[in-house]
Amino acid sequence: MRIPYQQMKQEFERVLKKFGFSPADAELCARLFAGASLDGVYSHGLNRFPLFIKYIRQGWVKVGAKPERLHAFGPLEQWHGHLGPGNLNAYHSMQRAMELAATHGIGCVALGHTNHWMRAGSYGWQAAEQGFVGICWTNTIPNMPAWGGTRPRLGNNPLVVGIPRQGGHIVLDMAMSQFSYGKLNALKLAGEQLPVVGGYDQAGQLTTDPAAILESWRPLPIGFWKGAGLSLVLDVLAALLSGGKAAWQIGEKPIEYALSQVFIAIDPTKLATDWQASVEGVIQNLVEEEGEGVFYPGQRSLRTRTENLEKGIPVEKQYWEQVQQM
Amino acid sequence: MRIPYQQMKQEFERVLKKFGFSPADAELCARLFAGASLDGVYSHGLNRFPLFIKYIRQGWVKVGAKPERLHAFGPLEQWHGHLGPGNLNAYHSMQRAMELAATHGIGCVALGHTNHWMRAGSYGWQAAEQGFVGICWTNTIPNMPAWGGTRPRLGNNPLVVGIPRQGGHIVLDMAMSQFSYGKLNALKLAGEQLPVVGGYDQAGQLTTDPAAILESWRPLPIGFWKGAGLSLVLDVLAALLSGGKAAWQIGEKPIEYALSQVFIAIDPTKLATDWQASVEGVIQNLVEEEGEGVFYPGQRSLRTRTENLEKGIPVEKQYWEQVQQM
Repeated sequence: MRIPYQQMKQEFERVLKKFGFSPADAELCARLFAGASLDGVYSHGLNRFPLFIKYIRQGWVKVGAKPERLHAFGPLEQWHGHLGPGNLNAYHSMQRAMELAATHGIGCVALGHTNHWMRAGSYGWQAAEQGFVGICWTNTIPNMPAWGGTRPRLGNNPLVVGIPRQGGHIVLDMAMSQFSYGKLNALKLAGEQLPVVGGYDQAGQLTTDPAAILESWRPLPIGFWKGAGLSLVLDVLAALLSGGKAAWQIGEKPIEYALSQVFIAIDPTKLATDWQASVEGVIQNLVEEEGEGVFYPGQRSLRTRTENLEKGIPVEKQYWEQVQQM
Repeated sequence: MRIPYQQMKQEFERVLKKFGFSPADAELCARLFAGASLDGVYSHGLNRFPLFIKYIRQGWVKVGAKPERLHAFGPLEQWHGHLGPGNLNAYHSMQRAMELAATHGIGCVALGHTNHWMRAGSYGWQAAEQGFVGICWTNTIPNMPAWGGTRPRLGNNPLVVGIPRQGGHIVLDMAMSQFSYGKLNALKLAGEQLPVVGGYDQAGQLTTDPAAILESWRPLPIGFWKGAGLSLVLDVLAALLSGGKAAWQIGEKPIEYALSQVFIAIDPTKLATDWQASVEGVIQNLVEEEGEGVFYPGQRSLRTRTENLEKGIPVEKQYWEQVQQM
């Protein structure tokens, strides 16, 4: 079953307005949700929308709340998210980082007390589409043990880098866990194994069995000890720059909210060199010489987007019906 | 065999002056080399020094060359390294990024046409010791295939994050490969296997055999496809921001030189929040609750430093004698 992008977006808009979003907020929020599904990130598009609405109903996500600037020092700013819708807060923060970069060459907006930003990559695409380099990350609820530990203590802290490029933007969107819980669940349901080890079983052995990892709550960080270290410093940076909560504090609450995020933008037109040629050189070297088996980050999202724009977005009926009934 | 830190540093200084370094340059360069060994990074301290001198003799590293600012736009600057000593250029660039951060809150120095910076972590410690957050990375010669590819096309592009902390700075220093070639060689010589898979053998199978990976030239990126993507964007950013070479261009030369690097500093004293409490909270949560098996990034370097300052730095006799005879 496929639904046209515009139809999906309009349906989200309708529901969001019903829950008190202003027309402009509803349009942007719907665009971000539908855009995630359009690019193939179904887990943070349509499939996530019902949970987002549930969090609004429960009061974890505050519909009319707007981010507020607490402090500014030139291109470095601290903002308070007031627990507003995470994707609107994040979008606003990346826009602000770009404004700062347009003035100062580089801009950094740290946002505390916000909510889950849904598809991380959205804000990399946002920056790249406006001609900016965008680097951003978020912390999360603790969902991965530290290296050598056994209890969840690190977030999977997705990191995004967006780089503008005429033939298709480069957008890296990666969590610090080797596999998401969503992926583990999907493979468990399908009765499949992971392609590479993804965590520990209850006995402390590395395994490719998603069910065993879901039982132990010990998924692997990327690169074992390395990703664990990177996850930790991303969390520390997000908390210290925003003044908001670190993962261990987020974990004190029953659900994941009041997150900390960092948005850095760089305006490459403020450089004196031919930055577009630099970018293009790397991509040409990678793609042309290797052929079809190799992709640059963002390339497959763009392919999926093109296909889904043409044929409609594949949807799981249960989620689509749930939204229609809202 | 152990050598006191001061003795090692003085020996390096003596040799560097002989090769034309000014007294100040010799002191700093010797401090960075001896500091790497002091912290246990022997591969980029004493053990690397003879190769550094060889590159000076061969003219790849230009002794008196100083980095030159090509362009400035507020806190964003582009510098040309003129193929000077890589650790001096990198140290200078992080200092400059901190100067910019002291003025603007955040500073970014991109450096092209420089040389191998030796121990990556040095510049994270440098920033943290002066009370700044420091983020830096370098590109390298291509030494890892892209995900899905078979020929070396990505650099291992070490990434460093330094965060000041009173009880011991947080310093993450990680290359994008799961294991360095140095580590693979050491384990091969010792007849040992890797603790986890580290690359492919000639038949394209994942393996823990370091010899097989050294034959295939196909080491694994951290997190498989994820680290490959991160390596790529770090390379693109280094090249586009500096205007210098990307990995594929560095790979056109017989040896690794004319690298591109990025140095970002943030002055946390320009924030309005209690950033020290943020940092300390994360570390206390991690270390106190987990006990001895868990370390924060930088913790073990500090332990090694303390031990090596007291007992002397362990040296491999061959390297030490080589330097003494210079």
